[in-house]
Amino acid sequence: MTYADRWLLPDGIEEILPDEARPIELLRRRLLELYRTWGYEMVIPPLLEYTDSLLIGLGRDVDLLTFKVTDQLTGRTLGIRADITPQTARMDAHSYKREGASRLCYAGHVVHTRPKNPLATRTPIQAGVEFYGEPGLGADTEVVSLLLESLRAAGLPKLHIDLGHVGIYRALISKAGVEPSQEDAFFAMLQRKAVAEIQAWVADNIHDKAIAKVLLALPGLAGGREILTKARTLFAAVASEAVNAVDELAAVADVIEQRYPEAELYFDLGELRGYHYLTGMVFAAFAPGYGNPIASGGRYDHIGEVFGRRRPATGFAVDITALSKLGLLKAESLGLVGFVDDNSQAQWQKVAALRSDGERVVSAASTDELKALGCDRVMIKTGDGYELAPL
Amino acid sequence: MTYADRWLLPDGIEEILPDEARPIELLRRRLLELYRTWGYEMVIPPLLEYTDSLLIGLGRDVDLLTFKVTDQLTGRTLGIRADITPQTARMDAHSYKREGASRLCYAGHVVHTRPKNPLATRTPIQAGVEFYGEPGLGADTEVVSLLLESLRAAGLPKLHIDLGHVGIYRALISKAGVEPSQEDAFFAMLQRKAVAEIQAWVADNIHDKAIAKVLLALPGLAGGREILTKARTLFAAVASEAVNAVDELAAVADVIEQRYPEAELYFDLGELRGYHYLTGMVFAAFAPGYGNPIASGGRYDHIGEVFGRRRPATGFAVDITALSKLGLLKAESLGLVGFVDDNSQAQWQKVAALRSDGERVVSAASTDELKALGCDRVMIKTGDGYELAPL
Repeated sequence: MTYADRWLLPDGIEEILPDEARPIELLRRRLLELYRTWGYEMVIPPLLEYTDSLLIGLGRDVDLLTFKVTDQLTGRTLGIRADITPQTARMDAHSYKREGASRLCYAGHVVHTRPKNPLATRTPIQAGVEFYGEPGLGADTEVVSLLLESLRAAGLPKLHIDLGHVGIYRALISKAGVEPSQEDAFFAMLQRKAVAEIQAWVADNIHDKAIAKVLLALPGLAGGREILTKARTLFAAVASEAVNAVDELAAVADVIEQRYPEAELYFDLGELRGYHYLTGMVFAAFAPGYGNPIASGGRYDHIGEVFGRRRPATGFAVDITALSKLGLLKAESLGLVGFVDDNSQAQWQKVAALRSDGERVVSAASTDELKALGCDRVMIKTGDGYELAPL
Repeated sequence: MTYADRWLLPDGIEEILPDEARPIELLRRRLLELYRTWGYEMVIPPLLEYTDSLLIGLGRDVDLLTFKVTDQLTGRTLGIRADITPQTARMDAHSYKREGASRLCYAGHVVHTRPKNPLATRTPIQAGVEFYGEPGLGADTEVVSLLLESLRAAGLPKLHIDLGHVGIYRALISKAGVEPSQEDAFFAMLQRKAVAEIQAWVADNIHDKAIAKVLLALPGLAGGREILTKARTLFAAVASEAVNAVDELAAVADVIEQRYPEAELYFDLGELRGYHYLTGMVFAAFAPGYGNPIASGGRYDHIGEVFGRRRPATGFAVDITALSKLGLLKAESLGLVGFVDDNSQAQWQKVAALRSDGERVVSAASTDELKALGCDRVMIKTGDGYELAPL
């Protein structure tokens, strides 16, 4: 490696320079303070831990996203976290074991072996919340509300979220009674919303007409509130669990529409994101100009089970790095005061006073250097002290 | 792995629960704001990058501390950062290449394959500053001042720092004219301050009496300001560069004593911490009850060279995790307001207003549950609205 390329960073791994770093830091704080006022307590999970703890029930995708190293102290395999949720589940199950509900929040880096999508960084900064111990819809409503508050805090011009429920697909496909390998094929088609393939598959595999009708309708069950009414009628003849799932969505939407009339709710009943570990409602937030979710979450009631504590759980994570790339975040614009150090106590006290007022103050050897540093004001000596003058 | 042990964390890798996480977060912000008012701009370097960039001139110690993984996109080796300084040097040399001085700051995790000392975590959280492009003592003084301000911000009862200068040892040992292998032996003895071994080694290897006298005195040249006068006399006959180094320490100490009369300065002229990459002044801060430095730094003028930009540089890093373990950090004590959701718009508005005033507000299904959550106040419905009552 030569001088010329030693400074290169790997693809998808980025350093964040001041113009971007400050707004990211401010949003990070704003989100953590928001979560705090909603009663969520901050935790700082470790950057790496045993893969046995880290890769629990989140499926093969997370496993492939996780960098592994050997622990030199034990010879066991450690994973660098690709997701913070299993870490908080471990905390809820053991080290922070509370009897009642437990609300946790966090902010930090995760690391992925490969970008999750073409635009994504491999080292995103995430902030998120996890709500353990509360099975009712109140928890889902709270978490969706807090997601909307997060979007607002990030300065998104529109509060737009997609809502789905993995219980719908789960109920319908179980009624269909197909072989697991056939189910996998259908799952993949539905994920791609490949309507023609779905039609062929249903014709070949589903002989019950009522179920066939519903499965054919599923990819199209996406849109506004009216979709829920349509779906309820469709599902009623086939699977009451699917109707219950629709009712849950409607109940949460009722409260959200009342609390956040400006929010746009979009329902997608064929949504399968996180299907392998989610157990109930699933939601995601999108922003104009970014094709992937900037935040996503859902209910995942079984997650603590591998740690010996099965607890209801729901939560979401916000992708702060993606928000930053949208250019929505702004740093406060503060000036910069310069001074040429005369080594006097009086000057130093004036500098200290400005700094404790929040002013940014730097020194340099000359006024020209202060200009080069970008100072807009300079400290000058007057008869009885120091004053600031424009530079 | 069974349920019983799946929640175990590796030795030296810790999760941080709310009681500790909040004070850490507050200190992190306080330090970043402090650095900001001193004109340092925040950067967020990546958690991992090519080892070719990460392990540059910091010596074998950092190499051994660094976890390595293979980049699946390029097949090249990536290192998980064990130190943030080389990352900021890369930024200063390339992506944030400024003509004049450049002041950068950061806060984040680093990861070590092994604990640096028996008490240390393998995933410390550090905050630090780096000042590039300014060769003069003004930069050293600024950085030492900012280290003292950091200790004050962390609530340390005493501001105590150790100061040394690697130029002293470098000048003296070069005058001694010994073989490199012999020098390595002496270096190790001096690091341990093994006086008897040093005496034997000097008797065997150093035939110039003036130099022998100085080398024998070196481990004992530690203490208050008076040490500098003594050292100046001793070194004068042997190496003028060593005298210059002492003069630099004295000049910085003059300013620091004036600015921070309460600070305790301790000089150790045989100090060799960071010798292999430091080039000038070296300093560290200690706190009662913790045997290792809670902050350390120094001048390292050559660091940007491997990136094609040799620039003067000085800086330090504060170990926020170590400070947290000292129990010095406190979270603000805020109460917790509870409410039982009646799904009314009026109640929701009251809750939102409390939250935007900074109150922590949580909901639960019953007053008993609110008690279990630790609420000290509860929202009750009155004739014309909602009020808070003690719980």
